[in-house]
Amino acid sequence: MTAHLLTIGDEILIGQIVDTNSAWMSRQLNLNGIRVHTKSSVGDTREAILAGLEYAAREADVVLITGGLGPTKDDITKKTLADYFDSGMAYHQDVYDRIAAYFIKIGRPIPPTMEDQASLPVKALILPNKVGTAQGMWFERDNKIFISMPGVPFEMEYLMTHEVIPRLKERFPGRPIAHRTLLTAGEGESNIARRIEAFEDSLPANIKLAYLPSLGQVRLRLTGTWPGDITPDADAQLAQVLDTKKAELEALLPDLVYGYDEDSLEKVVGQILLNQQKTFGTAESCTGGYVAHLITSVPGSSAYFPGSIVSYSYEMKTRLLNVHPDTLTRQGAVSEETVREMVAGALDTLNVDVALAISGIAGPGGGTSDKPVGTVWMAVGDRSRILAAKHIFGRDRLKNIQLTGTYALNMVRKFLLQTI
Amino acid sequence: MTAHLLTIGDEILIGQIVDTNSAWMSRQLNLNGIRVHTKSSVGDTREAILAGLEYAAREADVVLITGGLGPTKDDITKKTLADYFDSGMAYHQDVYDRIAAYFIKIGRPIPPTMEDQASLPVKALILPNKVGTAQGMWFERDNKIFISMPGVPFEMEYLMTHEVIPRLKERFPGRPIAHRTLLTAGEGESNIARRIEAFEDSLPANIKLAYLPSLGQVRLRLTGTWPGDITPDADAQLAQVLDTKKAELEALLPDLVYGYDEDSLEKVVGQILLNQQKTFGTAESCTGGYVAHLITSVPGSSAYFPGSIVSYSYEMKTRLLNVHPDTLTRQGAVSEETVREMVAGALDTLNVDVALAISGIAGPGGGTSDKPVGTVWMAVGDRSRILAAKHIFGRDRLKNIQLTGTYALNMVRKFLLQTI
Repeated sequence: MTAHLLTIGDEILIGQIVDTNSAWMSRQLNLNGIRVHTKSSVGDTREAILAGLEYAAREADVVLITGGLGPTKDDITKKTLADYFDSGMAYHQDVYDRIAAYFIKIGRPIPPTMEDQASLPVKALILPNKVGTAQGMWFERDNKIFISMPGVPFEMEYLMTHEVIPRLKERFPGRPIAHRTLLTAGEGESNIARRIEAFEDSLPANIKLAYLPSLGQVRLRLTGTWPGDITPDADAQLAQVLDTKKAELEALLPDLVYGYDEDSLEKVVGQILLNQQKTFGTAESCTGGYVAHLITSVPGSSAYFPGSIVSYSYEMKTRLLNVHPDTLTRQGAVSEETVREMVAGALDTLNVDVALAISGIAGPGGGTSDKPVGTVWMAVGDRSRILAAKHIFGRDRLKNIQLTGTYALNMVRKFLLQTI
Repeated sequence: MTAHLLTIGDEILIGQIVDTNSAWMSRQLNLNGIRVHTKSSVGDTREAILAGLEYAAREADVVLITGGLGPTKDDITKKTLADYFDSGMAYHQDVYDRIAAYFIKIGRPIPPTMEDQASLPVKALILPNKVGTAQGMWFERDNKIFISMPGVPFEMEYLMTHEVIPRLKERFPGRPIAHRTLLTAGEGESNIARRIEAFEDSLPANIKLAYLPSLGQVRLRLTGTWPGDITPDADAQLAQVLDTKKAELEALLPDLVYGYDEDSLEKVVGQILLNQQKTFGTAESCTGGYVAHLITSVPGSSAYFPGSIVSYSYEMKTRLLNVHPDTLTRQGAVSEETVREMVAGALDTLNVDVALAISGIAGPGGGTSDKPVGTVWMAVGDRSRILAAKHIFGRDRLKNIQLTGTYALNMVRKFLLQTI
């Protein structure tokens, strides 16, 4: 069984809002073994909605529609659906009563437009919306199911969770599907592809591998679909095959894989620090606090992170981190010696077990012929050893800061695990 | 002229990534007078891509395609486009040389898959991608234009900005269109709408006002389209009308407007610091370096920003910022007294003219009945006065950090301008 997600509303087409609904819906459907085959977005016009419905119905068995159900004039989804299914309208006293009760509960007058909200197509099975005024609607025609929901995220999520997914699972017991995701850092998509070419070629037809690249990272996702007749142990068998393939893939990239599924480098580093009962701090120049921000974006990070020094100026480097003025003068702020001294200074000033130091030229200005824009020195160390590394990233300031964050956290991870 | 945005890639259909590209593209196209009529997303299969192309071509004059151009096996967009346009492939030495130069520059071996990246459909006009390996492609058939770009956001943005939009504007000159954007912080969409209702009602039909809300901010965009026959001074006249309306709108919201167009709070604060020849630093607890990161994301910020202390732990607050242990014990770290002492400490430790301090409960844990999750104290001050404010945001950790950043920078701005 396949699904199509159809979004209705001008606000998405002019870029006023980012469509987060459909990512949420996709994840929930996938978890329940329902594959989203295609998605589309159309504006608040009858013609665009009708053309969207035609396309959607050709592409999938179930069409999940969101948006355009508000009480204002530009919301024409309900009327258009009634026409599409050749259905008259009926007034539902029970729906009106539920909406009225909601307004009474929040202490507001019932707007007159709520009578319209209780008028619904006769051919629709009504899916009660207990957290808003626009009801869900379920239509069927030619073996296809069309479900209409409001676009307000928590109302859509309520209807998906309590009405739509349970009904779809009952209707289509479906083929098991499962995913395994490996997270890698420090290598590009093409070089990874080369290293795992033989593995990829050997995958059975029911297991697919996808590369999901972002700055400095590539997620590798294995998706398995149960190939044969559905047996009672199909889910378990599929899980076993996927776990085996995941282990094979990880064994090919031991230097690159840092985590799985919903992990992130900052979560993984935090978990290692917790396990090793170590504290960690940063001394940041060109990243200006970005790595500290990543670390503290993880709930509970106060258990291992007491703080950081953002030392943008020479004075901060010398005064708060005890970098020798001579080092800055002779080697420059972007140098191996400087980041090594910054680590040593941070260990003392922050009183932590492990420290990371970063100094580079984020750009767009400040580059020289021997230290071009994008040059970044980073070092990580404790009281017995300090390791330093140099990278040359690109010209874009924000991208350089983000790439530095990824490479630096990965270096901390490897340092803690003693794999460097 | 209308556009359709077609996204290719399984990662969007399983909800692993949120599609931010198409919102960005919609905004840019809109700014240039190109209306996005519909959008769709299909997976990495030949059939789905072909059906998506058919639907897209029925709906719009220009089809903008992103994704599926990587060098790996699941990226089949290029091959499918070649088939769709009945085109052979040709190897482009100049493209290969450019890619090779990129790898040499970053000091990495050139992967063999790069030969494939330089092999492109004969019927495509190549749009050079100078920031990645997948080239843009421009096809035409039956008066429709199809443009394929990589899905990596900054590569797509590069191609849209430098190749696609200039070419589309040349091809479809269209009616003069212009925009003025006012940036506001600290008030919600509905309350702003109420304050400017009469202004909005009085706008002529050729000038539209859009509300573009983000966390803690609302951008107000006036779009004017030249209403009559195109005259030599149409652009100048339209600009004059828009400037007048912009001034009227700004006069209605003097307390909220902080900048225009591509400004950001961090840029505006930086510009004021430069003008006033003052230095600035932060002492951050719950934001963990996020505000320092925002400040240093602006090129040239080293002129006014020497550094920050991220004081996550009690020890950092007392040792590096001279907060009295008694204050922490009696009032708690999230209190007016603590942030005031943090400002005083930061002025000394960082040796700056103006300092910002932040301490709050970002969540999800750590809340109490009198200080719920989302409670944030912030203070800004110099050697003659310190102002403090308390906010209660929501339950989401990252949103709380981001909202705090916006409110804090806006407070610094008002403090510097002496409007608070």
